[in-house]
Amino acid sequence: MMTRKVKCTIHDHHLGWDNSLTPSVVAQPGDTISFEVVDSSGGQLGRNATLDDLKVLDFGKINPVTGPVYLEGAEPGDALIVDILEFVPSGVGWTANIPGFGLLADEFRDPYLKVWQYDANFAEFLPGIRVPVRPFPGTIGNAPGEPGHHSVVPPRRVGGNLDIRDLTAGTRLWLAVEVAGSLFSVGDTHAAQGDGEVCGTAIESAMQVTLKFDLVKGAGFSAPRFRTSGPVTRHIDERGYDVTTGVGPDLYTASQDALRAMIDHLGREYRLEPYDAYLLCSVAADLRISEIVDVPNWVVSLYLPRAVFS
Amino acid sequence: MMTRKVKCTIHDHHLGWDNSLTPSVVAQPGDTISFEVVDSSGGQLGRNATLDDLKVLDFGKINPVTGPVYLEGAEPGDALIVDILEFVPSGVGWTANIPGFGLLADEFRDPYLKVWQYDANFAEFLPGIRVPVRPFPGTIGNAPGEPGHHSVVPPRRVGGNLDIRDLTAGTRLWLAVEVAGSLFSVGDTHAAQGDGEVCGTAIESAMQVTLKFDLVKGAGFSAPRFRTSGPVTRHIDERGYDVTTGVGPDLYTASQDALRAMIDHLGREYRLEPYDAYLLCSVAADLRISEIVDVPNWVVSLYLPRAVFS
Repeated sequence: MMTRKVKCTIHDHHLGWDNSLTPSVVAQPGDTISFEVVDSSGGQLGRNATLDDLKVLDFGKINPVTGPVYLEGAEPGDALIVDILEFVPSGVGWTANIPGFGLLADEFRDPYLKVWQYDANFAEFLPGIRVPVRPFPGTIGNAPGEPGHHSVVPPRRVGGNLDIRDLTAGTRLWLAVEVAGSLFSVGDTHAAQGDGEVCGTAIESAMQVTLKFDLVKGAGFSAPRFRTSGPVTRHIDERGYDVTTGVGPDLYTASQDALRAMIDHLGREYRLEPYDAYLLCSVAADLRISEIVDVPNWVVSLYLPRAVFS
Repeated sequence: MMTRKVKCTIHDHHLGWDNSLTPSVVAQPGDTISFEVVDSSGGQLGRNATLDDLKVLDFGKINPVTGPVYLEGAEPGDALIVDILEFVPSGVGWTANIPGFGLLADEFRDPYLKVWQYDANFAEFLPGIRVPVRPFPGTIGNAPGEPGHHSVVPPRRVGGNLDIRDLTAGTRLWLAVEVAGSLFSVGDTHAAQGDGEVCGTAIESAMQVTLKFDLVKGAGFSAPRFRTSGPVTRHIDERGYDVTTGVGPDLYTASQDALRAMIDHLGREYRLEPYDAYLLCSVAADLRISEIVDVPNWVVSLYLPRAVFS
């Protein structure tokens, strides 16, 4: 089959999901598409952004996605195969605490902003603290079958705002199709993020993303699946991890407890202020469920790679 | 300070936690103690165990722990430092589905048993499927401050049945102290386990464990913390991961969904029967919280390392 290279520009974006949108691109299985993706603020927080810009953020413009792509032959019940090929990052990004949003929203009530410049390898957080760069799209998915406009914030069985930090170059993703053509879109590119994205934002950064598409007919997948081409933590695990835990009958509360303990730890050991510690955990630390069977108490562990400290 | 080497034998074990127990050993900060640990069945499931033995398992004898150690100078509010030095594994272990226990207890209702022989590097699950060995104690903790007898099953802020699979040789663990002397015990040694221990058991295996003790006065830790000396997944990540997800407002339900999808995947791709897939996930796959901020839906991902398949 002849495969084509298609472009989906920054003008082909939409806010929220809606299966009645007109496709920006019609593609065939095997096609490669390059997407221009704006950052999740929709360009409101750029290289020179300040706390004042964050305070007046227009939430009506957040998290635009580029698309939708109509893939010929895709029908409800199929799975869209997305091969994640390449990222061209912009080198500029931001991380913020947005009041009302994040795992510790009740305790971290003030707006707080970090603007990053980064290269192909690292993003400096503070002197002596740098985060390895590993780009991926925070939002990647198909239009839901249910008619109408759907918020872009929650992820769904068809994907969307998944914020899975291992959807990096080399990974293959399978997404359930619920409407003819699948109506795929991508956005919300991140230069780095820990598992959990605990403060609610990663290193939010505009990028160009290149993806290749195919189909599995009648896959019947109930949620996204993916396959990484290799290890997923070797860019950051060399010096081991500092780990805090939360123990209790609710995984969400245990996650909050583990995060509070890590913020305490980062203050004691590295003299980090709480807001900085919160943001650093969001871009670099991983929430893992250590056990989920020893009734009634589960254990959630937050892994901070010590490699971020030089 | 002169440090001593002390032994805590298999006869020094107890069932459940109770801060009125007489210490088996009195130790000082800096002491190294070697513990003989029986498997979590208390010796009921040995090298020749069968499904019939599992069916008549006496739950009154499960999860004995070796100790308690009275550490001189330890007081409530301190943290006990436990340096995990060495394991001498027995080379024999078991993994079981025990009815009523495990993340999918409602669906996997039958008793099911796998008995393992393993060497220093690998445990063979089935022909062509082997799990890297990485020993750790599933249960490690101090006596709770609250008087009386407490079940060994749930972990607590003082530790206990944590089932944190990275408490391997080289890791330093901090445990909150709630009673004078700390009254530390260890048991439930595992030859391998994934994050989550989803079926409820790991490779349960008797071992000798050597630990070194120290104290942080007045640490005030609310839950266990630990520091790994290096990477935690390089023994298993070489070939990347197959990953399934669960998406929804409850992390427990999302974890179940991710596990059901992985059992489906292992059936499709590797022809594994559901009970075998369930046990393999328990000993080798990792539950991670990909995002916990995109209201109202969180994403839990189950990572199965492809290195287990030869």
